[in-house]
Amino acid sequence: MDINNVKTLIWDRNSLKLIDQRELPFKQIYIETKNSNDVALAIKDMVVRGAPAIGVTAAYGVALAAINFKNGSISEFEKHIKDSIKVIASSRPTAVNLFWALERMKKTLEEKISKGEKSVQALKETLISEAEKIEKEDIEVNLKIGKNSLQIFDLVKKEKITILTHCNAGGLATAGYGTALGVIRSLNSAGFVKCVYVDETRPYLQGARLTAWELHQENIPYYVITDNMAGYFMKEGKIDIVVVGADRIAANGDTANKIGTYSLSVLAKHHNLLFFIAAPFSTIDFNTRDGLNIIIEQRPAQEVRKVLGVQIIPEYMPVLNPSFDITPSENISGIITEKGLIYPPFNENLYKFLKL
Amino acid sequence: MDINNVKTLIWDRNSLKLIDQRELPFKQIYIETKNSNDVALAIKDMVVRGAPAIGVTAAYGVALAAINFKNGSISEFEKHIKDSIKVIASSRPTAVNLFWALERMKKTLEEKISKGEKSVQALKETLISEAEKIEKEDIEVNLKIGKNSLQIFDLVKKEKITILTHCNAGGLATAGYGTALGVIRSLNSAGFVKCVYVDETRPYLQGARLTAWELHQENIPYYVITDNMAGYFMKEGKIDIVVVGADRIAANGDTANKIGTYSLSVLAKHHNLLFFIAAPFSTIDFNTRDGLNIIIEQRPAQEVRKVLGVQIIPEYMPVLNPSFDITPSENISGIITEKGLIYPPFNENLYKFLKL
Repeated sequence: MDINNVKTLIWDRNSLKLIDQRELPFKQIYIETKNSNDVALAIKDMVVRGAPAIGVTAAYGVALAAINFKNGSISEFEKHIKDSIKVIASSRPTAVNLFWALERMKKTLEEKISKGEKSVQALKETLISEAEKIEKEDIEVNLKIGKNSLQIFDLVKKEKITILTHCNAGGLATAGYGTALGVIRSLNSAGFVKCVYVDETRPYLQGARLTAWELHQENIPYYVITDNMAGYFMKEGKIDIVVVGADRIAANGDTANKIGTYSLSVLAKHHNLLFFIAAPFSTIDFNTRDGLNIIIEQRPAQEVRKVLGVQIIPEYMPVLNPSFDITPSENISGIITEKGLIYPPFNENLYKFLKL
Repeated sequence: MDINNVKTLIWDRNSLKLIDQRELPFKQIYIETKNSNDVALAIKDMVVRGAPAIGVTAAYGVALAAINFKNGSISEFEKHIKDSIKVIASSRPTAVNLFWALERMKKTLEEKISKGEKSVQALKETLISEAEKIEKEDIEVNLKIGKNSLQIFDLVKKEKITILTHCNAGGLATAGYGTALGVIRSLNSAGFVKCVYVDETRPYLQGARLTAWELHQENIPYYVITDNMAGYFMKEGKIDIVVVGADRIAANGDTANKIGTYSLSVLAKHHNLLFFIAAPFSTIDFNTRDGLNIIIEQRPAQEVRKVLGVQIIPEYMPVLNPSFDITPSENISGIITEKGLIYPPFNENLYKFLKL
């Protein structure tokens, strides 16, 4: 599907090529993975990042394991696949989508075998198809999120708008198109985008390195700014809406996302700007009542002390590095999902959409 | 005066040694200047930065020019000094304190001559004394600002407080002690400081490189954070007050300071935190009615694209770099000057203190 000018991953039923996100935006290199070990290593070494992108990659890792199985019985094949799944699962211990995708691949295999499938070749085809389906579904969800965002037209009384975004919830974080960046792509295709302001997003610079790079590929006008400039540009009247992704959304709408998102939501509220979350409906965790129940990961100080491998803060200086923050539901104007653009009150409306 | 563990400048009536602020915090090197050309170059090359520190350095540059004058008439001496002043004045075209200090040195010389002074040696002594006076006054102002900040005791109902600061309004930006950092030093000496949160302050990292380094020398507990973490820590209840410096204060209290200050003021207000400006009374520009009349300097994109000389954002990416922003007076709890801690309404109270 040609939805991005540059692809996050390229699958040809023989190998999976992954754009090396560690090298962006300075080098555009694809790493070719030919088996499940290669895939596990690529995930571990952060060649690929972003929860949905990791999930799709893991599924293709299982497909590659299937393709590489030479000769043997059904039970030998099943063991080979389950061993490969274990290797891939060990690549990133906390990535939810990784386990979800691997579990889905495993269940698909088990169901087919329990239904009496006797051909290894047929099982191989089943796993390949399932991985392709996971990729296709991910892109379709993102396209629907983009389509549903067009309702913003009716909310903003302007011909063209300026959008502020943070971190990378783009094609690179997914199989393609992206969530927050999918919204920007969709609004831009509709002729609605004047310009995008991209927070560089310290400490990892996902905004400057990935989001700005994606916008550049798509010829969408943008500026990179440092994170501390967002309030200034809001006050100057340069920003119309804010759109960001989400790592996890609680049942009441409280949203965990990259550090800095919360500050943006407070600034947006202060300036009467619309503030949107864009995420697959599956990001909503109905088992988590509110943001207080989301534990914030504290990541190594080293990520702050070094920028692209260069020491900017000495080792002896104490540094804090919360990786995410929680934006309370009252700061959110709407949550854009593939099921629709959901408005407050979220504690009621998220459940309503769950039943759709 | 031993008010800092590490000195910004060391004057010994023979040379002026300047700590090289470009090399901090990784190297602690002093650059020795022996004449006015050396001084001009040190200012131009940003060995020294911070408006008050530049002013004091410039004054000592004139003192060095006086010391280096060998033999000649009064009028030859006057010409020599005025030529040196021109050289120093050309080092940084927009630094207000630079011109103020040079003008004061020039006037001191002219007055002494017009009163009939015939001895070149006496004129030399006059200029040396005046430069030393400028340094001493700067430190005294900062010490008074620190002392006046102790009123914060009565406002915050806590035994010890956590302070957030931004950029560097420290001993390094002045002849010593600092303004915002002088407040922190003073509160710390009074046993009132639990911890300081230091914004790294992109793009130039003055927080991480200079403020954190100063706090480290003083053994004041601190953490470096990225600018986008401030809101998170406020929400977590980790911050009690915010203290920052000022580049210019309008007659109504609107304050120009390093980019990011405005966002902090909005976040502080949202979290009901006290937000203080610390600055010499001379920073208040009664000719500027309000913040709308302060033009924000847009600096080169290169400063954002490169960190410590390393390219982090490619050249082809459009970048914006407003260097300052305006914090409106309604977001400011108090302005701490050497004349006292001034409370709102600033449009009335700043004039009242002007008459003191």
